[in-house]
Amino acid sequence: MTTPLDGIRVVDLTRVLSGPFCTMLLGDMGAEVIKVEPENGDPVREQGTIREGLSWYFASFNRNKKSIALDLYSEEGKEILARLIATADVLVENFRPGVLAKMGFGPERLEEINPRLVTCSVNGYGSAGPYADRPAFDFIAQAMSGFMSVNGAADQEPMRSGQPITDLVAGLYAAFGILAALRSRDLTGRGQRVESAMVNGAVSLMAYLASEFFATGRVPPRTGNDHPLVAPYGLFQASDGEVAVAPSNDVVLGRFLGALDLRDLLSDPRFDDNPKRFGRRAELKAIIDGRMRTRSQAEWIARLNAVGVPCGKVQDLAEVFADPQVRAQEMMIDVDHPGAGTVRMLGFPVKLAGTPCRVHRPAPPLGGDTGDVLRSIGLSEREIGDLEAARIVRAAAQPQGHYMPRKPEPAP
Amino acid sequence: MTTPLDGIRVVDLTRVLSGPFCTMLLGDMGAEVIKVEPENGDPVREQGTIREGLSWYFASFNRNKKSIALDLYSEEGKEILARLIATADVLVENFRPGVLAKMGFGPERLEEINPRLVTCSVNGYGSAGPYADRPAFDFIAQAMSGFMSVNGAADQEPMRSGQPITDLVAGLYAAFGILAALRSRDLTGRGQRVESAMVNGAVSLMAYLASEFFATGRVPPRTGNDHPLVAPYGLFQASDGEVAVAPSNDVVLGRFLGALDLRDLLSDPRFDDNPKRFGRRAELKAIIDGRMRTRSQAEWIARLNAVGVPCGKVQDLAEVFADPQVRAQEMMIDVDHPGAGTVRMLGFPVKLAGTPCRVHRPAPPLGGDTGDVLRSIGLSEREIGDLEAARIVRAAAQPQGHYMPRKPEPAP
Repeated sequence: MTTPLDGIRVVDLTRVLSGPFCTMLLGDMGAEVIKVEPENGDPVREQGTIREGLSWYFASFNRNKKSIALDLYSEEGKEILARLIATADVLVENFRPGVLAKMGFGPERLEEINPRLVTCSVNGYGSAGPYADRPAFDFIAQAMSGFMSVNGAADQEPMRSGQPITDLVAGLYAAFGILAALRSRDLTGRGQRVESAMVNGAVSLMAYLASEFFATGRVPPRTGNDHPLVAPYGLFQASDGEVAVAPSNDVVLGRFLGALDLRDLLSDPRFDDNPKRFGRRAELKAIIDGRMRTRSQAEWIARLNAVGVPCGKVQDLAEVFADPQVRAQEMMIDVDHPGAGTVRMLGFPVKLAGTPCRVHRPAPPLGGDTGDVLRSIGLSEREIGDLEAARIVRAAAQPQGHYMPRKPEPAP
Repeated sequence: MTTPLDGIRVVDLTRVLSGPFCTMLLGDMGAEVIKVEPENGDPVREQGTIREGLSWYFASFNRNKKSIALDLYSEEGKEILARLIATADVLVENFRPGVLAKMGFGPERLEEINPRLVTCSVNGYGSAGPYADRPAFDFIAQAMSGFMSVNGAADQEPMRSGQPITDLVAGLYAAFGILAALRSRDLTGRGQRVESAMVNGAVSLMAYLASEFFATGRVPPRTGNDHPLVAPYGLFQASDGEVAVAPSNDVVLGRFLGALDLRDLLSDPRFDDNPKRFGRRAELKAIIDGRMRTRSQAEWIARLNAVGVPCGKVQDLAEVFADPQVRAQEMMIDVDHPGAGTVRMLGFPVKLAGTPCRVHRPAPPLGGDTGDVLRSIGLSEREIGDLEAARIVRAAAQPQGHYMPRKPEPAP
C-alpha cells in the first residue's frame, strides 16, 4: 500500500526530543527518514533505561528511521551532506538558530543545492527576535510561555508539567508545517523554510485563556482542578476512589444530579443558579460526595457516562496501559529489535483507515544504514571504504544490536 | 501568492474547541473552510467575553472560515450537505463516534458521494473500543490519559492543566493527519477516514515517561518543579523574583555554577556527583539561592543565557504578551472585524517563510456566507429564497456585525 509520505526523503539532523519527535511522525507516515548522527550518536542513545544495549527511550522516538554516522565538522562530511540534501525533499534540524548556517548550510546555499527542499527548524524561541540565540529547554519554555502560570493550584507555586509538552508540541507543529510546505512545493515547484518554536507552540495553546486576557486585560489565575467559573466540577469521592466529573453546562448538570438522585438541588434556593453554586462550592461538593460515597468509582463511571455526563478517573500509567480502551486503540505496541529483544513503545496517535501508520523498521543501530545511504547518492564501495578509513563516516560494526556509540579508542 | 492549501475546500461540522482548532489551522494555511452551523450557531458564539456583539473566543478560533447556517435535521438540509460534500476535499466533524452515520452520512454514503473525500473525526476516546460512545471533555481526557498523574507536586493531588491541552493536541494531530491523507489522495486518487482522539493524543505525549514505564514497570511519580533525577534544577531565588534554571547535564551545570562563582562545589565531596547533589538538593539549593539573591532576575537571565545555560522566568499572560520575543514572533495579532472593532488574538505557531499564514478573513457572522456557498454548489436565487422561507437555511440579516445567533421568535 502506498503510504502518505511515500517517496519523501527526509534528512534528519535533529537530536534528543523535539526534532526526533517531528521526524518520527513523518517516518510513521511512510517517509524515508535518514538520521545523520555524529560519531557518538544522538545523546538519547545513552539515556533512560538500557536493555540489551538499547535505550527504550531512543527506540521509541527513532522507529522508522535510518542512521548514518557522519562527521559534519570535516569538509568531506559536509560534501556528503550536500549530496544527500540534493536528493532530499525535507531537511529538519533542531540546532540553535544560526548554527546550520555556520556549518555552511545557510538558506542561500540550501536553495542552491536543492530549490525544491523544505527546510524545517525546530527551536526554542524562533529565529527572529532578541532571544533567538538563547539555549532552549522544555522546562524553560513552559515557564516563559505562560504554561506554568495557569498550571497548578491557586495557593501553590506555578507548576511545570511532567510531560515535556513544549518539545512535543513544537515537534508536532513542525510536522504539520512540513506537510503544508510540501503541498506548497507540489503546487509551485519551490521549497521553503518552516519554523516551529517551543515557546510559540506553548503560547498557541492558551486558547480561551488568551482570548479572555485580550478581551478583559485580566490575567487568568491558576485554578487547580476546579473550573474557574462553573460548579460543581472536578474530583468527587466515590467509595473506593475519586471520580472526575465535568458538568460543563446546565443540561449535563441536570443529568449528573439526576443520576445522583439530587435533582432537587436545582430548585433549592441555595443552589438554583451557577453563581450561587459557585459561591457555595464546598457545601455543594460535600452533598455530592455524600451521595457518591454510596457506590464505587467503576459504578459511577458506568452510570454517569451512560446518561451522557463526561466523567472518568485519574489514571496513572499502569492503569492507562491496562485500560481496555487504550489497548483497543493500540496506543501501546511491541516492536521486535533484532539483537535487543522486543521493545514496548507508544502507538500512533493519528489513525488513517486506508494507510495506517506502522513500524516498517525498528530504530536503527548507530551508522546502521551508512553504506546503503551512501550508495543511494552514488558513492562507490571504494569511496565508502576510504571515508570509513578516514573516520569521516562510520558503519555499524555488526548489522544487529549495535545501538550504542562505540567509545573512541584511547590515544595510542 | 499560492497558499499551501490553495484550492482545498473543507466542510466543517465541528463546534466548540478541538474540531474548530483543527479547521482553524487548515484555514490559516489557506484552505477554504465552510463552517456549517445550526440555527443557534456554534455555542462558542455566546461564550467568553462578548464585545460589540462578538465573542473574542469565537473570533480567535474561527478566523479564516465561512459560515453557513443550515438545518441538518431536515431532509432538504441533508441534501444540501450532500451537495456540499460532493464539492469538498475534506470533511471534519467532532460529534461522538456514530452520530454522523445516524445523520445519514456513514462511511459508505460519504464514499458514494465523493470517493476523493478525506473525512476526519476528532473525538474523545476513538471510535473503536469499549468507551467509544462516552461523552468527552478535556478535563476527563486529562484524567484518563495519565496526564494528571504526572502533573503536580509529589505531595499534592494529581493536577489538570489550565490549558485545554487534550482538545488542542487532538485538533493539531487531526490537522496533521488530514494533510497526510490529502497527500495520499493526491498519490492514489482516493480519500480515507482520519481519526484523532483526545485521550490518544494526550497518551502520545508521555514520551520518555512511557518508555521508562515500559522498560521498568515503575509508575512515574509526580515531581512538581523538581527534576526527577537531576539536581540542581528548578526555580531559584534572585533578589526580585525566581529564575527557572535547567542545567540538564554536567557541561551546563559547570557553566551555571561557574557563572555563580560556585564552581568549587563540583569538587566538594558533598556535591561531586549527581547522586550526592540529588540527595542534598535542599542544601545545594540554599547555597545557590544565597548567591542568586545578590542580583536581579533580569541580570541572572541575561548572564546565564549568555553562557549557554537554559533559563528564564515564570511569566503570566500579561508578561508573555509584553515579552519582546513573543512580540517579535507576532504571537499576538490584531484583526479588524467589520462592525465589531479590532479583535486581539493569538498569532500563528508555525512560520512558513514563503507562504506565511495570515488572516484572510475574520471570523464569520452566523450564516454570513450562506448565499455565496449555496450559489457555489449551483443553487439559484429562487431556490435559496425558498430554503430561507422554509427556515432550512439562514443568511445573516446584515452582512456585518451579526455574530450572535438570532434567538428563535416566540411561537405565535
